[in-house]
Order: sequence, then structure tokens, then C-alpha cells
Amino acid sequence: MQVNDVVAYIQAGRDRFVADLKEWLTIPSISGDPGRAADVRRSADWLADHLRAQGFPTVEIWETSGHPAVYAEWPAEDPDAPTVVVYGHHDVQPVEPLDEWDTDPFHPVEQGDRLIGRGTSDDKGQILFHTLGLRAGLAASGRQAPPVTIKLLVEGEEESGSAHFAELLRARRERLACDAVVISDTTMWSADVPSMCTGMRGLTEAEVTLRGPSRDLHSGSFGGAVPNPLHAMADLLAALHDADGRVTVPGFYDDVVPLTDEERELFARLPFDEDEWLRTAGDSRAAHGERGYTTLERIWARPTAEVNGMWGGHTGPGGKTIVPAEAHAKISFRLVAAQDPSKIQMAFESWVAEHVPAGVEAEVRVPGGGVRPCFSPIDSAGVRAARRAMERAFGTEVLFTREGGSGPEADLADILEAPLIFVAVGLDGDRIHAPNEHVEIPRLLKGAEAAAYLWEELATALR
Amino acid sequence: MQVNDVVAYIQAGRDRFVADLKEWLTIPSISGDPGRAADVRRSADWLADHLRAQGFPTVEIWETSGHPAVYAEWPAEDPDAPTVVVYGHHDVQPVEPLDEWDTDPFHPVEQGDRLIGRGTSDDKGQILFHTLGLRAGLAASGRQAPPVTIKLLVEGEEESGSAHFAELLRARRERLACDAVVISDTTMWSADVPSMCTGMRGLTEAEVTLRGPSRDLHSGSFGGAVPNPLHAMADLLAALHDADGRVTVPGFYDDVVPLTDEERELFARLPFDEDEWLRTAGDSRAAHGERGYTTLERIWARPTAEVNGMWGGHTGPGGKTIVPAEAHAKISFRLVAAQDPSKIQMAFESWVAEHVPAGVEAEVRVPGGGVRPCFSPIDSAGVRAARRAMERAFGTEVLFTREGGSGPEADLADILEAPLIFVAVGLDGDRIHAPNEHVEIPRLLKGAEAAAYLWEELATALR
Ligand SMILES: [Zn+2]
Ligand SMILES: [Zn+2]
Repeated sequence: MQVNDVVAYIQAGRDRFVADLKEWLTIPSISGDPGRAADVRRSADWLADHLRAQGFPTVEIWETSGHPAVYAEWPAEDPDAPTVVVYGHHDVQPVEPLDEWDTDPFHPVEQGDRLIGRGTSDDKGQILFHTLGLRAGLAASGRQAPPVTIKLLVEGEEESGSAHFAELLRARRERLACDAVVISDTTMWSADVPSMCTGMRGLTEAEVTLRGPSRDLHSGSFGGAVPNPLHAMADLLAALHDADGRVTVPGFYDDVVPLTDEERELFARLPFDEDEWLRTAGDSRAAHGERGYTTLERIWARPTAEVNGMWGGHTGPGGKTIVPAEAHAKISFRLVAAQDPSKIQMAFESWVAEHVPAGVEAEVRVPGGGVRPCFSPIDSAGVRAARRAMERAFGTEVLFTREGGSGPEADLADILEAPLIFVAVGLDGDRIHAPNEHVEIPRLLKGAEAAAYLWEELATALR
Repeated sequence: MQVNDVVAYIQAGRDRFVADLKEWLTIPSISGDPGRAADVRRSADWLADHLRAQGFPTVEIWETSGHPAVYAEWPAEDPDAPTVVVYGHHDVQPVEPLDEWDTDPFHPVEQGDRLIGRGTSDDKGQILFHTLGLRAGLAASGRQAPPVTIKLLVEGEEESGSAHFAELLRARRERLACDAVVISDTTMWSADVPSMCTGMRGLTEAEVTLRGPSRDLHSGSFGGAVPNPLHAMADLLAALHDADGRVTVPGFYDDVVPLTDEERELFARLPFDEDEWLRTAGDSRAAHGERGYTTLERIWARPTAEVNGMWGGHTGPGGKTIVPAEAHAKISFRLVAAQDPSKIQMAFESWVAEHVPAGVEAEVRVPGGGVRPCFSPIDSAGVRAARRAMERAFGTEVLFTREGGSGPEADLADILEAPLIFVAVGLDGDRIHAPNEHVEIPRLLKGAEAAAYLWEELATALR
């Protein structure tokens, strides 16, 4: 197979690809809007029809307690070939505020190379490049079936929290058995600096209530002689980080997979402009965080504790000199592999109990089980193979990033017990989840090209 | 003069005294209710008439920009005798919630020794005991004029913040020239443990705003790499006290008049039940405060910093994983003599500026000038004399307390440049400012008796 054959096939298929994508994009599959349930289903049906037309021998609609997913399978010729699940989602974000869109979000418009509309980048455009890439790979190699068994799983609830996805994975675990999961729902560093995601931070949250007197006390009569829950809360939250910006909860870092020298070196090669980043960070005046790590390492690869909200006592206008009965705080922990949300929750609860002064009662409420982090080590065979495919398509070195998010990704890794490989061509600038979402069509075609090379690279690497 | 003569005079005058007081109490002189302005004036007029009838040679209504005060003067026979201002107020608190009163608040009712009604204890009953006591003293001594020049000043706005009192004092400074100010608007430890107030804490307040990013940031993207104003606020407020519960603002204790051994020893003799006190303190589970001081010393004689309110970020239901743009806190400082509210405000502002981390901007807003503390040292000649008068009346040792409050008291001390002496017979149990305010008539008569001895004691002590 010649590179030129794949490229030629993709160039020839460009108009058909764009026409198909535009047709799909007109379906407003907003999973978060109960009034759009029929549209989400239409979107699933459209994809199922498309996949059949593209030659997938098996295409099924998988029902869930919420919106349907689409499953398609194309077995390798070689029964010993590896199996790869490809994950994406066919639902989209809401479009409010509508008046900030320059075009109708569900009537996609081409402006030069740019395609504007809800779902162009997240995630319909990135699912569709796989079918074009797969067909380009088959055409260029003259094969009738891909070099690995492909199991395409496209869920319909990602933008509303993947509420039934773990359930679906558990129910379909046998059918989804695989050697790796390719995820196409992330971004690259930039159009000029292609990159692959290597992990997503997880999350666990806690709400702390500290109780002192049974009612607000007049501070003139009692102030300075009884414990003030606001003082206790300030002490507690101040003690959550040490002078090096490290979280002080015992065991917090125990399960953290450390950054490798190679990953740190590759992160450092990204053209990161800290001043520009601070501007995007709400004009933050200084970077600040765990000592010994760069800003990118802090936001990508290090766990954090962040106070998201804090309140208690008199918060209205004017003064009210009280010792309040209660103080509250909401705290979230960003987790990295291989931290376990429930272990962190338990460690935090014990820490709070030990740090509350006499006379103050503490309650820690944990809403839900949290989100596990996910991780795709850059030295795995699968990631190295996918990186080669990306580099062949983009003709340049592919670097690595990490991202926020995580949710279905961690479920895929954990329930299917397979390594994750992130292959995607979105950009932060695509305005996903915002008005005027768009994508550059040539970028999607690069994605198709990478997908064309991906299966043969993985066929060798995963064998 | 024989003690028995004073006592006999007061016993003989009891019914007249109670009848007069009940008449005055029927006037609803609620200064905080604009609809009661005419009643506050009627109350002033009633008192002026009463004072004239009691023999005061000079009685005037002093107008203010708000409600009128009553001024009465009775010069000593001896032109070299000391001059004493006696302070009280003829306005009363509102009576809501009315349905919690067992009787009509403005139709005073006698139940045995108890007189129930708004103003019985705070402060009409305590003003009126002075005229009875003064006449008893004159009668027993056979004098035509008191042994000190008495200048009675009864304001009409104390219960609504004494808004025009300082103005009045400055305007009438010459007329009010004196050697001491006797204040009759405080409480004793208990009916069995007579005591005198020796100081009131002052107050200054501040609102702190810390600003980080210009808008709330998604903590998944930015958390752990930019300063979080809530963390900075927790650090700041935690640093406000050291491990000994002392306020860390530099210079905070510089002007504090230390407790004397005698005062600490006398405080310690008060029958204070800490467990009972904790129950009244909203069932607080433990006493807590500045190391090295008892609970009474902490609430009476030591300055404090108290966080009254704190808020920032997401405070509603559910989670919202943000790095918030702002954090806020309301802080109040209770001050003791001779701390100056404006010095403390400035020291706090500097301290905040020095304790805010890079990337966080601090603003300290100070609402108003604060309230100066007031102080009546137990070893002053005036206090020792007044204590003798109280001990003669109550026939037992008189101890010392301090109180919250302060406002007109500090103005009297500062503007008239005279020492304060607290002579009063109120009790915490009198339900002042609450439904069913009451007083025991024999207690008011003890006040009259103390007032009868007071002028001759002060005549000697202040000469
Ligand atoms: Zn997506
Ligand atoms: Zn009063």
C-alpha cells in the first residue's frame, strides 16, 4: 500500500464525506433535552444506516434505559488478529445561547475549509472520519476486511453524563471483548502540533459541614470564648495544602503513577505560552500550584484538592456580629491514575475528623462515587503504534497531552479491561459545547488518513 | 445621717415611687419606631415635670436632630464640691413579638414584688431610683442640696443607636463639664451577687474581598495551577489566630490595658458555672479562646477577632467544580480599653495586604469608624466610692463584671473627658429588649438606697 493511495482515496471521497456529515449534523441529537429524544434516536438510525452502507457486516442499535447507542462490527480476515473497540458519541451539546450563533447550529455551513455546526468537531465529525479512513485503508491495501477486528461503539448520552453507559458496557461485556480501545473524542495541541491524549483526571467531591453552637450567637456576648465553626473551617482548609502546595491528606499520593522522564520531556516540547495561558485563565495574575511541576504537569498529571465553595454566617449586606452555628465547604479532588475515588474519599473523611478542634462537630457528605481517572501510558505498544499512524498522516512528530473530562473513558478501560488509545483531531479552538462550533475539513481528513494507517499499525503492535 | 433614715424614707416613698414609675411606663417611647416620635417627646416632658416636682432647680428639654433628651441640674451647696453627670435613657425597645407578652407592655402590672412592662428595668426604673435616692439622702442629712452638683442627662435615642448623642455632648460640652459620669444602664451579676460594670468592649468591623481570576474557572482545566481565592481566604483567616488563640495582627494588643491581679481575683469570685454558660451559648460543646484566660476574662476583658461570615464560589445545591473568582469574609474585632478602632483597622488592612499570596488581590472595606471600648478601672477613687455606696445598700461585698454594649458610654468618657462609674441594678434575667420585661421593686429600692449614699461618698472621693 502506498501512502498516496490512501491520500488519493480520501481526496476523492471528500465531497461525499462532507455531504454525509452535513446530513447527519442536521439531526439535533441533544441528549440533555428530553424533548429531543426522538432526534437522538434518528441520529442513531442515521449512523446505523451509514455504517451498513460503508460495509460493516454487523450493525445494531443497542438500547439503554436512556438514549440508544450504535454498535457495528467488522471482523478481521485473520481470526487471530487483534480486536479493537472504537469509541465515540452521536449525541451533542445543547445550543443555547442561540443568539450567539452566526449560523443555524443544525444547518451546517461551509466557509472555505471550515464546517460550522453543532457536532462538527464533537463528536460526529470525528466518528465519521473513521469510516472514510477504514475504507481508504481497505481500498489502498486491496483487502476486503480490516487487519484488526473493529468494534465501533457510539453512545448517545455522552453529553448528558453517560448515565447508562457503564451499565451497557457491563451488559455487553462479552460482545465488546477487545485488545484495546481507541477513543476519538479528544483534542490535539493545535493544528500545527498534532498530539495524542494520554490520560484524563478523575474527580471526587465532598461537602464538609462544621457545627459549633446550636444557633448563631451574639459575638459581643460569646465571641472569643466558644469555638467559631468559620475559624475551624479556615484552619481546616488552610491545612489541606502544605507550603509546597501538596495535599496533606495522608495517602493522597500513594497510588499516583509518576510522570516518566520521557513524558515530562515531551510535555516540555509543546509550545506552551504561560502568559497567554494565564490570560485564558481569567487573566490570572500568576501561576500557582504544587512545587516542582510545570503548569502543564499540574493541570494534566498531578492530583489536586480545590475548594469550590465555602460559606457560613452572615453573608448579606451590612454587619452582623455573630458566632455562626455552621460553616460549609464544597471541595473537589482531581485525581490521576491510579488513584481510586473511594479511597481518597475515605482518607479525606478521616483527615477531617482528625483536624476538627474540640467543640466542633464535622460532617462529610460525599455525593456519588466520583469519576475514576484514566491513563494511556506513552510507552505502551498500542500508543506507540497509534502515534506512528498519526505521524504518517500529519508528516510531523506527534507529541502528547492530557485532558480533563474522563467518565466513559475510565469505564471502558475498567469494564473492558483494555488499554486506551486516544486518536482524535479536535482542537480547543473548535468551540465545542459553545456557540459556533466548527471544524476544519482538512483536519478531519487527516484524521481519516491516520485512521487508515491505524489498523495495520495496531495489527502488528497488539499481536 | 443614719442608714435607717434613708431606708425609712425610701420605704415610706415606695408607693409614690411605684405609682410615678407606672405612669411614666404607660408612655410607649419607642425611639426606633418613627410613628412613636410624639410618645418619645411625651416621655421627655413627663420626666421633666417629674424632675421639677422632685426639686431640681434647673430642668430643660434638649432638642437633637432626633428625639429630645432631658437635662436637669441640682447644684451642690458647696461651690467647690465635685460635679457628677448621671446618664440614662428614657426611650425603650420595641415590643414585638407582642403575642409573647403575658401583659400589655405599656400597662405595667405588679405581680407581688415584680413590676412587668417595657422600660421597667431598661431604663426608666433605673432613672427613677435616682430621684428617690437623692431625696432620701437629702431628707436623712437635712440638707437642701446634694453634696455634689448633679447633672442628670437622660437621652431619648439609646435604643435606636444614640444617633445624635455624640453631637449633643459636643454641643453641650460646657454645660456638662464634670468630674465623673455615673451610668445607670447596666446589670449586676445576680440579685444575690451585686456587682458593678467596669468596662464595655468596643467594636470594629471589616469586609475582606480576595480576587483571583476575573471569572469562575473550570477546575478541571485550571485547578491546581492558578491561585484559588478560597484557599487564600482560608489561609488568611487561619493565620488570624496563633496556636494560643491570640490575634496575630501586629500591634493588636499594644494598647490593651491588662487585667490587674485584683480584678482577676474578683472576677474569679463570681459564682460562674461554665457548664451552665455553655448551655446558654447555644449548647456549645467546649469553651475555646485565648490561652491563659478564663471564660469570663475572654468575653469581658480580652480583645477578639471573630469571623462573622465567609463566602465564595459555589454555595448552592450540588457540585460545581470551579476555581472561583472571589472570596469574601466579614470580620469583627471586639476591642477593650484602650484600643482605638481606627488603629486596629489600619493594622488589619496592612496585615491582609502582607498575607495575600502572589496572584491574589485583596480589598478591605471598613464600614464606619467602629465603637470605642470604655473602661472604669476598679482602683479609681470614684469606683471605690461608688462600690462603698453599693455595699452599704446591699449589705454585702460588691463584685465587678464587664459587659458588651458601649456606644454612648465611650462618647461620655471621651467627649466629657471624665471617668465612668457604673451604678445600676438591672439583671440579665430582666428580659430587657424581650417580651415580659420586668424588674423586682425591692431591687429598684436598693438602687435608690445606693444612690442616696453615692453622692456623699463621691463628694469625699472626688474632691
Ligand atoms: Zn465529545
Ligand atoms: Zn438601656
